[in-house]
Amino acid sequence: MKRGRRPGETKTRDAIVDAARRSFARAGYDRTTIRAVAQDAGVDPALVMHFFATKEHLFAAAIQLPFDAESEIAALREAGREHFGEGLARLFFRVWEDPATGGAMVSLLRSASSHEDAAQRMRDLLDARIVQPLAGALDAPEARLRASLVSSTLVGLGFARYVLRLEPIASADPEVLIPALGRTLQVCLTEDIFNTG
Amino acid sequence: MKRGRRPGETKTRDAIVDAARRSFARAGYDRTTIRAVAQDAGVDPALVMHFFATKEHLFAAAIQLPFDAESEIAALREAGREHFGEGLARLFFRVWEDPATGGAMVSLLRSASSHEDAAQRMRDLLDARIVQPLAGALDAPEARLRASLVSSTLVGLGFARYVLRLEPIASADPEVLIPALGRTLQVCLTEDIFNTG
Repeated sequence: MKRGRRPGETKTRDAIVDAARRSFARAGYDRTTIRAVAQDAGVDPALVMHFFATKEHLFAAAIQLPFDAESEIAALREAGREHFGEGLARLFFRVWEDPATGGAMVSLLRSASSHEDAAQRMRDLLDARIVQPLAGALDAPEARLRASLVSSTLVGLGFARYVLRLEPIASADPEVLIPALGRTLQVCLTEDIFNTG
Repeated sequence: MKRGRRPGETKTRDAIVDAARRSFARAGYDRTTIRAVAQDAGVDPALVMHFFATKEHLFAAAIQLPFDAESEIAALREAGREHFGEGLARLFFRVWEDPATGGAMVSLLRSASSHEDAAQRMRDLLDARIVQPLAGALDAPEARLRASLVSSTLVGLGFARYVLRLEPIASADPEVLIPALGRTLQVCLTEDIFNTG
């Protein structure tokens, strides 16, 4: 017999997680309440508590990368080391320019910076889903340091372009930026840049 | 006759701004209250209202770059174009590694991401104090686009290392990271990286 939740229960749980994601994105961690999430999902607050017990658990369920990072990184690795930077740059814009996935990324950044619990969740998420797979795909010394430098560059562009909307990088065409971002990521990924004595 | 506030008034105002900066850093924009700031500064809430009227005005007074960006950028320009990237990397760590100025930068990032008004203040601040002076110091096509890409890279490293504390970049020695950051900034500043057709 297959274990797991009944279909109706899964659907309700998914609706709650969707509502939570919207609320964390719009209102941030602190201003999100179990009550408001329940209302948005069309369920009783007690049901939200039944599934998640605390806001922290609800947040953990709501934050996920809105794309399959491991598969994407594996595909970039196939394409060859010299195209890795540009491939990552294309992936970045594909994720962030799409309103659905981009909105989820903005939500992640906003929540992470407003609250220490949320920051820790996001740190764990980035480590497991980006830094480690990326480091594994790199055949270079200081692979994890490179992978975390790449992550910081991508987080910075996400923050500057989509959260702060700093100009002119906020309005520049992705096709103008892709070679620039690709080149700087390629430097982080493959050049002999660290002073490790 | 010299215009301006009496010395006692200036001192009180400074104490309020200091308290506000601490509160925005620790609690974020939303959870900061006029009442709590007044209490921390040892003054009556009415006095905070007298000087600043709204939390938004208090925030505008509290966010400032904790270093003289224009002078620093002018000095880097003097050192010559080929050292610009590494000079900026050294400046980054000098500002962020010092508890006083680094704390102020973390506060800026946290506040900016939690609230749209705060994001706009930070965007204006970065534009006026970093992007424009940096673009002015660059003798390269797409100077403002380069300057905003450099800003996004620096914001990303600040966010990843000091807010998220993503490893291993969070614990790496600045002396290991300076050449890496310097090299990537130099690429952003001077290489032919944009696809402007």
